[in-house]
Amino acid sequence: MIKNSLGINLPEYIEGYGNVKPYMGAFANIENTSYTATRKNAFSKPNTKKLCLSIKESIEKSELKNGMTVSFHHHLRNGDGVMMAVIETIYEMGIKDISICSSSFTNAHENLLHYIKLGVITSLHTSGLRGNLAKEISTENVLKKPVIFRTHGGRARAIEAGEVKIDIAFIGAPACDEEGNMNGSEGKSAFGAMGYPMIDALYANKVVAITDNLVKYPLKRISIPEIYVDYVVVVDSLGDPNLIASGATRITKNPTELLIAENAAKVLIACDAIKNGFSFQAGSGGASLAVSMFLKDYMAKNNIKGSFASGGINAYLFELYKEGFFESLLDIQTFDGSIANEIAKNDGYIEMSASMYANPHNRSCVAHKIDMMMLSATEIDIDFNVNSITGSHGMIMGALGGAPDTAAGAKITLMTVPSIRKRMPIITDKVTNIVTPGESVDILVSDRGICVNPKRDDLKEKLNNNNIETRNIKEVYEEIISLTGIPSKVSYTDKIVGVVEYRDGTVIDIIYQIK
Amino acid sequence: MIKNSLGINLPEYIEGYGNVKPYMGAFANIENTSYTATRKNAFSKPNTKKLCLSIKESIEKSELKNGMTVSFHHHLRNGDGVMMAVIETIYEMGIKDISICSSSFTNAHENLLHYIKLGVITSLHTSGLRGNLAKEISTENVLKKPVIFRTHGGRARAIEAGEVKIDIAFIGAPACDEEGNMNGSEGKSAFGAMGYPMIDALYANKVVAITDNLVKYPLKRISIPEIYVDYVVVVDSLGDPNLIASGATRITKNPTELLIAENAAKVLIACDAIKNGFSFQAGSGGASLAVSMFLKDYMAKNNIKGSFASGGINAYLFELYKEGFFESLLDIQTFDGSIANEIAKNDGYIEMSASMYANPHNRSCVAHKIDMMMLSATEIDIDFNVNSITGSHGMIMGALGGAPDTAAGAKITLMTVPSIRKRMPIITDKVTNIVTPGESVDILVSDRGICVNPKRDDLKEKLNNNNIETRNIKEVYEEIISLTGIPSKVSYTDKIVGVVEYRDGTVIDIIYQIK
Repeated sequence: MIKNSLGINLPEYIEGYGNVKPYMGAFANIENTSYTATRKNAFSKPNTKKLCLSIKESIEKSELKNGMTVSFHHHLRNGDGVMMAVIETIYEMGIKDISICSSSFTNAHENLLHYIKLGVITSLHTSGLRGNLAKEISTENVLKKPVIFRTHGGRARAIEAGEVKIDIAFIGAPACDEEGNMNGSEGKSAFGAMGYPMIDALYANKVVAITDNLVKYPLKRISIPEIYVDYVVVVDSLGDPNLIASGATRITKNPTELLIAENAAKVLIACDAIKNGFSFQAGSGGASLAVSMFLKDYMAKNNIKGSFASGGINAYLFELYKEGFFESLLDIQTFDGSIANEIAKNDGYIEMSASMYANPHNRSCVAHKIDMMMLSATEIDIDFNVNSITGSHGMIMGALGGAPDTAAGAKITLMTVPSIRKRMPIITDKVTNIVTPGESVDILVSDRGICVNPKRDDLKEKLNNNNIETRNIKEVYEEIISLTGIPSKVSYTDKIVGVVEYRDGTVIDIIYQIK
Repeated sequence: MIKNSLGINLPEYIEGYGNVKPYMGAFANIENTSYTATRKNAFSKPNTKKLCLSIKESIEKSELKNGMTVSFHHHLRNGDGVMMAVIETIYEMGIKDISICSSSFTNAHENLLHYIKLGVITSLHTSGLRGNLAKEISTENVLKKPVIFRTHGGRARAIEAGEVKIDIAFIGAPACDEEGNMNGSEGKSAFGAMGYPMIDALYANKVVAITDNLVKYPLKRISIPEIYVDYVVVVDSLGDPNLIASGATRITKNPTELLIAENAAKVLIACDAIKNGFSFQAGSGGASLAVSMFLKDYMAKNNIKGSFASGGINAYLFELYKEGFFESLLDIQTFDGSIANEIAKNDGYIEMSASMYANPHNRSCVAHKIDMMMLSATEIDIDFNVNSITGSHGMIMGALGGAPDTAAGAKITLMTVPSIRKRMPIITDKVTNIVTPGESVDILVSDRGICVNPKRDDLKEKLNNNNIETRNIKEVYEEIISLTGIPSKVSYTDKIVGVVEYRDGTVIDIIYQIK
């Protein structure tokens, strides 16, 4: 066993994962002596047809074999019909032992469980996992190999570094021409920015575009160019358009959340974070949206114009951009179907790859340019470590997303949580699993006041100068458990069901099977 | 010695070049078992500054050493001040034995000769070479190592395949932010499409952006993203804006050229090449422009709308696009300064990388989608082999450009030449050097009629059916030499001054020093 710098014990080697590099600090792993991954060179002649008559044909031509890795992206959200159509075809073709490297999984992928039980799928790499699939892995260890959890930046990094070798990338393309030039912003299945597979396409040995909207060559706005695409399959539909375009985020109406949001906005203003040219990322949650709403008022009154908002862009941020509150938007994944077409139409609405968003092992990334970011999570502890992958019960039920990436990069990272949820303390002595290390988290705003990470006395001073009271997080914790009691510890078996990679490829935590 | 399939003797190994793979046919080298190049992984933290105070600082930080390779692009044309500023700095820093891999050289680079003589520059990779520099290499072998000539597609291929390893790519950026997001279409030095360095940036170990227009982060229209850029240098000027923006192509007024152009247009129409949805590439020469003019008349009268025009896009093609004669433009390098800003403003005006344009060892390229392309050259022979790199006197004086790429890809390749220039036969028994193999050239239109490559009897039949007379190219040649006489053969030494690579990395010809 080895210990990482957060005191977590890690095996030196994990079956189904490999050698473990322990997390030693947010910027400790300086990967500047190794080289990027390669992909096979190809060959083309005039009149070579990429169009395949079926997904099956594209898989045959791509020479998928037992034990290989296929990749997907989750921009089609709960409406995604692509991944399951491919997996079903793989099953029908009798291919087994497949690893899936997806940017995430959604409700649309619940049926993976079936193919895991059949041995078709034997490994999952993802940012998040929820629902019954997550439950069966957490409690029954149905997958046997640990799920490898990566941040959005970490996934791009792992692919670029060759740590994940994608044999075939399947890309759902709402607009695509016969050579595979594609984008995500046109057609009945438009979802918006296409940031995740932009990296898969660069490094996969084979790339298959699956589209329900074959356009005349050449597609005019190209997010992934034809040079990376081997095959194009036209299907009737990429999934359920209503669910693809859904997910409109709404501002919370919960009074506690609104209060937290209002306080968070006050804190950010007092920290002098809201000034001309500031940049900003908020999560997709209703509370983050509420903070944005309060900030907008302040910006309007004080004539403040921000630089950029980044991340998953939602309709509210787009509205702020259109109203001139931000000069530009940097988008990896559009959260609202209602703005899926906008990226093509607005000069300042910029599509970025996952690597540009947050890969720490490139020459720079957007995550490192953010002035302030807000996140919420399932738990935070007295060392400001944040959990967003498991619940207090130890069950996998969340995602890493880009939070560890942007928390590391942002000048100020502010976390909002309710202090208690369903009688469980959300501010705890020790989070069930660590996803974002405390060193990246500066301020906590909950319904029990404001806590500042002791390493940020500068911010505490600013708050105090603005007559904003701060509290010691340990006091808050004590207050909470005086109400809830100390919850009983989760019992685990010795089976590892998940490995949580930090964005730099080190292991920040391990998830064990629940007893 | 080995022979390539065009009967040219090649050494198996060339000092300063390496092992020779002989050309064996336009699509014979199927490079689908090797892998793409890699580059060093990097590392970034928030607040890391890429801005350097000088070119010197960027070179120091990039750790340039004797014997390394630096790359440039020639989009700044005759106004380019970037390359010479970098080379002068390298000289001042005492660094020697540098290879330059540039997309091409222009008049702005004449002074390289000085640095070659000083031993600072010892190897050149380029698409073309002209002027005194070319003369001294051809006649005096001043460089000692052969110049390596590559097509635009071949250069992209060589970089992607790792055959050229770029240590530092210097990119002149008319618009750039502090993290290196850049484009070529904004600012006082705007030149338009940035197709060449888009590939250098992907594979160079270090990338330096040099700009005279530092914009607020993030730049909105991004041709090369920050993730590939190590350093940014702000200079007063990228060169002479008048010469950067110059190069407006004009339609020829020479009556012979106009007659050839008119006949070329008739031939293309008779071959049924000009119909709805056709795609098209014309060179930058005045004759090609004249053909476009005749075609426009025909298209207007017959209500024909083309699909795309590709290549270097000139103002006349842009006009055709604006008038609706073509649906889109695919541009690697904008030929006219007057349209340098247009790529950012027109939906159908698409920027493409050199790899997307013409790399034959990717999954596809635009060159392979072209219905018909027109080229001109210095010589063509009775086997339809084309020379555009040397004159009849054997002197280096031209460029490969994208001609071999698009000639190979296009369904119909039409060549226009005057049959005699300065009393020298332009249609010869054997071209001085082969750049584009005869198998890629279908039709020759000169002032002595129309010749069709015997392998294209289908086209000959179409022409004859339309009452267009064709001639045997050997008869035309005999007729020409009956007027000019047979020119005396060029005498060479046994020193190799140039290696002409075909687009697939094989050697199609060798250029020897002139006696």
